[in-house]
Formats: sequence, C-alpha cells, structure tokens
Amino acid sequence: MLDKLFNPRSVAVIGASQKALSIGNVITKNLLKYSYKGPIYPINPKADEVCGLKCYPSVGAVTGDIDLAHISIPAKFTPDAIDECGKKGIKFVIINSAGFKEIGDAGLAIENETLQRARQYGLRIFGPNCQGIINTDPQLRAYCDFTFTYPEEGHVSIVAQSGGVGALYMQAIHDLGVGMRFYASNGNACDISIPEILRYYGDDEKTRVIILYAEGFADPGDFMDAAREVAAKKPILGMRSGRTAAGAKAAASHTGGLAGVGLSTELIFKKTGILAFRDVEEMCQAAMAFATQPIPKGNRVGMITDTGGPAVIATDELCDAGLEIPPLSEKTTALLKEKLFPEASVRNPVDVLATAAAPHYRAALDVLMDEPGIDSVYINFVTPPFVDTESVAKEMAEVSNKRIKPIVCNYMTDKPQWTGTTAYMKEGGIPCYDYPEMAAKALAALTRYNALKSRPKTAVTVFSDVDRARAAEIIQQARNTDRKMLAADDVYALLGSYGIPVASCRMARDADKAAAEAEKIGFPVVIKADAADLVHKTDAGGVALNLNDAAAVRKAIAAMKKNITTPDLQFLVQQYLPGGREIIIGAKKERSLGHMIMFGIGGVLVELLKDVAFELTPVTAAEAEAMLRSVKTYPILAGYRGHKGVDQAQLITIIQRISQLVTDLPMIREMDLNPIVTFEDRVVAVDARIIIS
Amino acid sequence: MLDKLFNPRSVAVIGASQKALSIGNVITKNLLKYSYKGPIYPINPKADEVCGLKCYPSVGAVTGDIDLAHISIPAKFTPDAIDECGKKGIKFVIINSAGFKEIGDAGLAIENETLQRARQYGLRIFGPNCQGIINTDPQLRAYCDFTFTYPEEGHVSIVAQSGGVGALYMQAIHDLGVGMRFYASNGNACDISIPEILRYYGDDEKTRVIILYAEGFADPGDFMDAAREVAAKKPILGMRSGRTAAGAKAAASHTGGLAGVGLSTELIFKKTGILAFRDVEEMCQAAMAFATQPIPKGNRVGMITDTGGPAVIATDELCDAGLEIPPLSEKTTALLKEKLFPEASVRNPVDVLATAAAPHYRAALDVLMDEPGIDSVYINFVTPPFVDTESVAKEMAEVSNKRIKPIVCNYMTDKPQWTGTTAYMKEGGIPCYDYPEMAAKALAALTRYNALKSRPKTAVTVFSDVDRARAAEIIQQARNTDRKMLAADDVYALLGSYGIPVASCRMARDADKAAAEAEKIGFPVVIKADAADLVHKTDAGGVALNLNDAAAVRKAIAAMKKNITTPDLQFLVQQYLPGGREIIIGAKKERSLGHMIMFGIGGVLVELLKDVAFELTPVTAAEAEAMLRSVKTYPILAGYRGHKGVDQAQLITIIQRISQLVTDLPMIREMDLNPIVTFEDRVVAVDARIIIS
Repeated sequence: MLDKLFNPRSVAVIGASQKALSIGNVITKNLLKYSYKGPIYPINPKADEVCGLKCYPSVGAVTGDIDLAHISIPAKFTPDAIDECGKKGIKFVIINSAGFKEIGDAGLAIENETLQRARQYGLRIFGPNCQGIINTDPQLRAYCDFTFTYPEEGHVSIVAQSGGVGALYMQAIHDLGVGMRFYASNGNACDISIPEILRYYGDDEKTRVIILYAEGFADPGDFMDAAREVAAKKPILGMRSGRTAAGAKAAASHTGGLAGVGLSTELIFKKTGILAFRDVEEMCQAAMAFATQPIPKGNRVGMITDTGGPAVIATDELCDAGLEIPPLSEKTTALLKEKLFPEASVRNPVDVLATAAAPHYRAALDVLMDEPGIDSVYINFVTPPFVDTESVAKEMAEVSNKRIKPIVCNYMTDKPQWTGTTAYMKEGGIPCYDYPEMAAKALAALTRYNALKSRPKTAVTVFSDVDRARAAEIIQQARNTDRKMLAADDVYALLGSYGIPVASCRMARDADKAAAEAEKIGFPVVIKADAADLVHKTDAGGVALNLNDAAAVRKAIAAMKKNITTPDLQFLVQQYLPGGREIIIGAKKERSLGHMIMFGIGGVLVELLKDVAFELTPVTAAEAEAMLRSVKTYPILAGYRGHKGVDQAQLITIIQRISQLVTDLPMIREMDLNPIVTFEDRVVAVDARIIIS
Repeated sequence: MLDKLFNPRSVAVIGASQKALSIGNVITKNLLKYSYKGPIYPINPKADEVCGLKCYPSVGAVTGDIDLAHISIPAKFTPDAIDECGKKGIKFVIINSAGFKEIGDAGLAIENETLQRARQYGLRIFGPNCQGIINTDPQLRAYCDFTFTYPEEGHVSIVAQSGGVGALYMQAIHDLGVGMRFYASNGNACDISIPEILRYYGDDEKTRVIILYAEGFADPGDFMDAAREVAAKKPILGMRSGRTAAGAKAAASHTGGLAGVGLSTELIFKKTGILAFRDVEEMCQAAMAFATQPIPKGNRVGMITDTGGPAVIATDELCDAGLEIPPLSEKTTALLKEKLFPEASVRNPVDVLATAAAPHYRAALDVLMDEPGIDSVYINFVTPPFVDTESVAKEMAEVSNKRIKPIVCNYMTDKPQWTGTTAYMKEGGIPCYDYPEMAAKALAALTRYNALKSRPKTAVTVFSDVDRARAAEIIQQARNTDRKMLAADDVYALLGSYGIPVASCRMARDADKAAAEAEKIGFPVVIKADAADLVHKTDAGGVALNLNDAAAVRKAIAAMKKNITTPDLQFLVQQYLPGGREIIIGAKKERSLGHMIMFGIGGVLVELLKDVAFELTPVTAAEAEAMLRSVKTYPILAGYRGHKGVDQAQLITIIQRISQLVTDLPMIREMDLNPIVTFEDRVVAVDARIIIS
C-alpha cells in the first residue's frame, strides 16, 4: 500500500538547503508554496533554518513522526541516510538525487546497497534519480517534487517514469485548465514500480482518468496484470515513444524484422485495454474530455455549428478517424425546422447560423440529445461580437451537466475578452478546444475508447487435438544436435502435431528416393533443398516448383546437388499447390511476454508496405479475427470486385493454434509460415521455418 | 491596385448603429478600439451620433474624402448605396451584409445588380457577405472588420474566403504571440478576388509569410498565375479542406474515381509552390517559425536537449517526417566534450543535462551552427527551477538573431512564472512550442519548404514526332458518330500518333478476318470485343487471352458472339504479352485547369490501397519522375530483393506524351492506359480507354 507515500502527514527533506538553485531548496520551497498541510522538517546539519523553517541535523533529531522523507544529498551518502530513516521508522523515501544506476556500474552498486538497507527496515524507495509525487487534495496539498507546475485539484492522475515527459503532461493539463489528482514520476524505479502506482490510482475514487508514459517495462507481466485490472475500472491513456529508433537488430525471420522497435508496448496497451496515443498534445487534450464527459455508445456524431469553414475542417477530421455524421431522423429535422432560423441548415451538420441566440442552441442540443441515431455531439462555437454568447454558453453548460451524451466544443474566441462565456463553458465541464481538429480528435478518442471497451471478448481456445509430447520431442531432438533452425520435415511434423494443415511432404536423401516419394504424394510436386545452414534456399537455387514426373524430379535434384555442396543436404518432396493467395503467419518470442504473433498478406504487401498485424499470446478467436480485419487489404481476404475471398475461419484457427504452440513450447524463438496458400475453402502451409533457442 | 482598400485614409460605415449587437456598431467600435488613425464617418440617417462619433445621413453629406466604405445595411438597399458611394468618388466598399448569392437566385440578382452599378463608377467591391480587412501598420491601424481578435503588428498576412476559418487563423497566430501584417476575408468574392489579394501581399515588403485558406477557386488559372508569381517571392502556407466529403460522382474511369474530392486544390498548391497543410494548428505553428527563422538547406537536424523523454518523442516525430539526426563530426564531438559537463551526451541528440547553464547551451549552439553536417537546430528546453534559465535564453536569443541556421524550441515551462526567460526567447525570435511534436512539425515544415523550393525544374518537353492532325481527325470522326468512348482501334491509333507504344493490333468484323490478322501479328494473341456501348468488356465475357492458333481465335469469337449481341460488335486482335508488371496511367479533365494526370502500379495496389500519384498538365520530366517516386511501392519500379525493376525512363516519357496529348486535344475528357505492361527494357500499353466530350 502506497497510502503514506501519496498521503504523507509529515515530510522531511534530507539535504534541504538555503542555496537558491539546489534541489533540496526547491523541494522545501514547493512544499511551502503549495501550502502543504503537514509539518515540514528540513534536515541539514550545517543549517539552523531553511526557507524560514527550523532545520534539524538529522531525522533522528525530529521529535514527531515522519511519513515521508526526501533524500537530495549526493548518492554516496544515501545508504547511510536510509539507515537513519529506517531507525526513525520512516516507511517511504523519495530519492531525488542522481548518480545511481543511470551513470553505470559504480552508481548501480550504490543503488543496490541503498535498496538492500531499505529492505532491512521495511522501508520503500521511490526513485532514485526521480522527481517525486504530488497530491492535490485540498486537505493535504503534498507537493513532494522539484517541478514547477502548481496544478489545481481535479480528476486526472499522471504516472511517468521519465520526469521530463511527466512534467510536460502536467503542464499541458494545467495549461488546458484541467485539474489533476495525483502525479508520480519514479525515475530509476528500483523499488516502487509503475504497476504498483497504477493499482493505487485504480483504487483511488477521485482519479477518473489516468495518463501513463512508458518507455519500457522492468516486468512486463506484472505491468499487464496491473493494467488489465485498472483499465477495467477507469480509462488509462497511454503513450509509448521510441518507435522510430534505429536498431531493431536484423532478425532471422520476417516476423522479427517487421515488428520494429517498441511494438510490444503498443501490443500490451491493446491487450490490457489502455487507450494508446502517439502525440502528447492529442493525449492531454483527450484527457480533458475523459475527465468530464460520458463515453459515447457509438461513432455517430451530431454536429452543431455557427460557421461554415471550421465545420468542413471538423468533418474531414472526424471522417478520417472513422466517425460518421449521419443524416438525422425526420422527427429531429422537423423539430429543428420549427425552432431554428428559417435560413439555418437542419441537416447534419446543423448550421444554427452566426446570429443564433441561446434558445436556438438549446433547441439544437436538446433535439440531438433525444435523437436515437446520434451518439455524441460536436459543437463549433465561434463567439460573434453581435450575439449574447454568455447565455449561449449557459445553455450548453446546462445540457452538458446532464451527461446524456458526450459533448466536445471547438470554442473559437479570444479568451481574455470572453471571460464570462468561458467560465460558463468550464462550469458545464464542456471540453473546449482552440482548433476544430483537436476537438474532433478528442471526440474520436472517446469513441475509440468505447470501441476498445466493447471489443468482443472470447476466452482463449485450448485445442485438445494437439500432440504436445510429439512436438516437444521434435524440438528436444533438434536441440540435442545443436540445430537452431529445424529441418524441413521436423517443421512440417511439428505443425502437423498442432493440427496446422501443411502440404503433404516427405524427406529424401537422393534422387531415387525423391522420385519414389513424389509418386506416393502425387504429381505435380515441389523439391526443396534442406540443410542445417541453408537459410535462403530460394537464393541458393534450392527450390524447384511444378515438377510433373519422376524425370523432372531427378533433373531438379541433380541441379541442386551442383549448386549446394553441404554434406547434410537433403530434399523435401512436397505436394505442389498452384494458384491461391499467399498469407504469412509468424511468431516471435518477447522477453517476459510470451510471443508476438504476426499476420499478413504475402508478397509485395508485406515486403514493401509492411501491411501486417500483431498480437500478443495467448490470442483469442476475436483477437485473431481482428488481426485479419486490421490489415489494409482485408478485402483480399473477404473478396472484392469479382475476386473470391479465402477461408478466413481456417486462418483464424491457425493463428490460435500457433499461439497455443508457442505458448506450450516457449523454446521456439521465431517461426514463420510463409506462405500459407489460401483458397476459398482450403488453407495449407507450404513453407515454414522454426528457430529454437 | 488594392492600396486604398488596405491603406484607407478614411472610412465610412454605412449602417453604423447604436444597437450593441449589430454589425454596423461592431465595425465602428472595432475601428475606435484599434485606434484607427484616419477619420471614421458613421452613416445613418436616423442617428446623430454612433459610439461617440458624429453621424452623417449619407456619404454625400460627408465633406472630406472617403477611401473606403463599409456597407452593413440589408442587401436590398445595397445597389442604391453603391450609387451614393460612386457619386461620392469612393473607390472601395466592403459589403458586410449577407443576403446575396449565398441565399439563392434572389440574392444572386441583387449581387449582380450591385456589381453592375459599381462598375459604372469604377468602384471595387470586397465581399459581399464577408468580414473585411485589417492592416496592423502602427501608422494606420485599420480594423475594417467585425471580428474580435486585435492582433499585434507583424509579418504574417492571412487571406481566407471563409470568414470562420480566417478568424480561426488570426486568433491562433495571436494566441501564439505572433504578429500579423494584413488580414482579408472576402466572402462571396463577387469582384476583388483571392488572386488579387495574393498579388498585393506578394508586393508588400512587410509581409514575410502568407497564410491561405481555399475551398475552391472561381478562376483556377488566374489563381495559379498569382500563386506561382507570389510563391517565388515568399512562403505561402495553404490549406484545403473538404477532402473527405462524400459525393465524388462515380466516374467512367479509374482516374476519375481515384482523384477524390478537392484533390485539384492540392495539385495546384504543389504545382505553384504553395506549402500544403492539412491541420490548422500545424500550419499556424509553422507560420511562427517562417516569420522569424531562415530556411534550412537540408534535412539534417542537430538536437540539443536538457531532458531525455521529450528528446525521444521529438526524434520519433522528426524521423517520421523524413528528417535525420545524423552523427556529428569528430571535431564537433571533441569541442562538445571540452565544453559540456563530463556526464553530458556529446552525440546527436546532444544532452547538455538538466543542470546545464548558459555557457553550456551557448557552446552547444555555436558548435552546431559551425558543423557543416547540420542544417537546422532543434532545442528541447525544460526550465529547471535550479538553473538560471534567463541567462540560458539570452544566449539562445543571441545565436538565433544571427540567423545562421533555423532554430525551433520545445519550450517546456509555466509561462506565467518564467516571464523573463520567455521574453528573451521572444526577443531572439525563437519559435517556442509547448510540445515536442509541434516543434518537430514546424521544423519539418521549414525543411519541406526548402525541398519544395529546390525541386528540380525542367521545362515542359514538346515532342515534335507527334501527329496532332491525325489525332484530331480520329476524335472528330468519333464526335461525328456521337461516340463518347472511342473504338478500340481508334484508341490505339490515337496513342500511336503520339508516340505511345501500344501492342500491335488490328480490328476485325468476323472470325475469318480475325484469324487472318492474328497470323499477321503472330501468335499468341488476345481477342477483345468492341462496341460503342460495351464499357466493361471483361465482365461481359469479351476478352480472350493467350490464343495460340487460328482455331483458338475462331472459338473465342464464336463464344463472344453468343454473349454479346450488339449489332456493331467488332473484334480487336492484339499481340499477347505475358508477364511484366502492370502500370496504369490516366488523365482526367479539370474545369479551367487542363487535365489531371494519374500514375499507379496496377492490381491490388491501385484498387484497394489507392497508391497513386497525380499531377496537373503540363507535366515536366521532373514532375513525371517525382510521380513515379511518390508511390509507396516505388521499389517495384526500381527493383527490390532480386526482383527486376522496369523501364522508368519510358514511363516518364509516356506520362509527358499523354500530358501533351490531352493538352493538344482538350476534348478528351478522361482516358486510362490500363494496363501498360512493363518490363526491364520495354513498356507497352495493352489496353486503353478514351472518353471524349
């Protein structure tokens, strides 16, 4: 429980100082400036007084209890300071000082020593190399941080390991006039973790929406558990960065190469129900809407505008985001005709005209709140100097406060002049945006959250017709021979043992055997060369397609033997399946996360456009189906313009079976089924690669 | 010349009123509030005084000269008011009143009458149904507008037909603390046009950057001439909207269907050198950088940061926009090592650390300004409470004012507290952004502008080996028979006359003739049914591929005759070219603009992904090459991973020849060459369609 960390009844600042530009000084000043309600104990053996407060030589010298201590002295003195805190019975310390893990081995040693000592006292560490926490509760006003934004009380809580980004979020929320509940930035996070903080926010009644910044996770599994638990209770808005950083090491498979940097964070967000953003401003602006507005039940927007151009811009943005501005019902249209100016447009967008007064807006809002074909309301409101805009805002606020459907507003005004109108908008909790695109994006985020929450939920299917023992045995045998890439026949046997349809095939050492196997399989066949070190068999001339008789098989094998000279050369004889659409499905192991499963439509779409979908194991049927639907060229699967589609149900099953396979056999590092040849009623893997560790 | 419109020495307000929420009252108040330096003459026969100013019964009753008159009386009285203005010798009127063309035929009649009367007096009309103009010149301060933003003097000029969007831009620029030069929003634009205003801004020395909003153009040719002329002198930032509006009528060709709504505006922007934006905030934030910073010479960014996370976010955004953050030279690295903290990172991004002081920043800036491998500088500057940030800002300002390379700054602070620092930043003309993404986008816009300005310029190639007369004759003959879609043999003859390579073909009435022609062309051949009303010949069973002998030809024709029963049925016998990559090139006529030329790689990429490029005629070689390079799957053309590329030079030539063809023969409404089969050394159109008007 982090209660005393976020609700400290008293705070000590070890390293408090008179020096204006020191961290200990800034923290003491912040506690004072924010009117912290508990006692503040500056600790500094060399000072009698800091910022007008009595200063103590050590925490031991303080007579009262201390709930929380800041440590802002050089890193090397920190372990001893921990001893003192432990002896005093302090349960939480925030170590603001730098000089720990982030500077290398020497710092890491101090960090470990610090943590070890803390554990002896049951003392929890926040940090080191961090900012701290803020609690805006008016009964407490704990500003235990050296940042510079002094937020109002509110319902948005922020957690970010990176202090720079955390401070950026806090300032953005503050500049938007949105109140904050908690702030936490835990830097090196040697003890108290993001998942713990998330859970604390999840249990906090006053926190309505959480903003999270992630650059990576020490324990992804723990994070996922916490995120899933908290996201079920309230919206978490998350951002990941580092998406373009060079350096995704060249991987041995398509799946590895296409995943890119930091993708797993995005997949974790999706899987646990965190709403993902890629832009700071967009996320913070969305948080403003989440803090006051209900969640829409669908994507149908009713628009009210008093100006033309911005409505066009908003329409573009909403449609780009997949929202609709549908026609209104006859009843609604008739009501609008009755209540608006005769020149007003009563279609959707509803143009009330620049001269519209309060009753017009009220009528339009009431009608849209009643209209069953509308899920949310977007308002473009420019404040004409010839309109009583305060009464307009008053009506908007009244409707907004009923919380029937979400409202966002592109509020186009000069705020220093329109203070009265602006105050009414705020009173009504109407999220006001300076730009039509921003208002549209915020509404799109609310709508996207509804879609995320109402995703079809299916349980993970467990296929009982699999032969796990056989699969494990195949892998163990390969390991025994130090083979990293499984032999072709092993690959097909392994896939077969998990019920994944593969083209009939047999392995052959020479041309005679190959010709005989081909007769059994039936012509036409394919011959593929196989050897432990043969990674790119096509490039090496090791693939011969569409062989129609034994002579052709012999000829192909003779040619391959010339090109490829490894002693362990074998030949896979396989049924040839011409035509069909090529699909690629793969898996790649992720540290502490199981595997990432990939789906894509083969050929140029995967190679040049990277039009692929990813999901973390275990993949449910609903998730597998969503993967298929999320590729841009999904119509290829569904059928389009006279082209027949493919057997999607089978692909969905294969994705799930592969998910089960790699979950059962985590020693599979990477695998590709490439291609899976698909037809209207049939799906067959004709080439595959499995790499084990 | 619009000089008296933008620099009126005296202003009359016809319809000035005491009524607080009337337009005439707001305009009079705005002139007063903004301290207009010339005399203001309220005109109202029913009042003695408006806003404390003497009121006149008519403009005729005013003794002094009047340069500009507002008209804000009901539309029906406007023509008479024009007479009075004309008699008084007024040269410009701004008609703010609504009730003209925008309300339908009755209003249009009044608008025409008003314009006709004005022409008798050589009087120019701005509007009607418009806001007006603003000139911030401190010697004049002409606020001839009913908007509510009171801008500071500056170098950004705004022109927007839509008043709502214009006001949005002006407020955005103002909120950013950026000064404005001129503002103009001309509503119905019955007389004074956007091109005229653009030219005026172009000639104005104090205007450094122009912001333009376009929803469409009355005279696209005139607009293009003006835009090209002005864009050669100064940056024009433009935005088009309505891009997702439903309603692009189903067109008879791919080219028509793929062009979508409003595309021509984007093509006009590109062709004339206007920098295009799709987001209001992004454009206005970019304008801030254009107003003070030089244009970078390339895309290599040096980043200076005092915090980690925001630098990661900025890196993502810069890389997404195609900018680079390259390694620094050894000399630069050595200098940084010498001058920064030992723990600082001297790579790019340069992390000066949160504790960095003014000399560190100055050193980093100076070094990057000197580094030849860097074209621009991006700064992440969070204001730590333990740093003397004013001295830091002072150094930044000094370097910025030298205008060596452009600087943008993600300035993360609480502005009401950091007023001194903020003032220094402003003094240095450093464009400061609240978010890393915004700063990155602004720098990307400067960089994109450099690329736009330094595009290779080639003259339009005029091919002299074309037979224009023959082509015109073919079209004339088709017109004589009322045929809208040219017959297949005419299409190939027409293409041939413009030097566009087509597969050998002959037309035949029956199977005997077809078999004979096939012998001459050489097998294999294709047979295609042709008739005036046969639009979708493949769907109708009118195409037979890969016919290897006369018997196959006869059989195919017999089958077609069964399926297709139109009396004018003929058969095109054509050389069959298997393999090769399919390309589509098309043209579509645009009102007053010549034609739009389209290029795409055929098949699923065009049909599902709409991965195509457009350009307006006349298309130069450089533009044609840029079209090829701009499709996402360009590597297909260039060759990738063992796949051979195609003859790009020939494709570039075909695009230019088609451009010349449709320019010479503007009666061509739409045409598609689909597909053009392409090989490494050969490019042949094998199917085409031409629709004339």
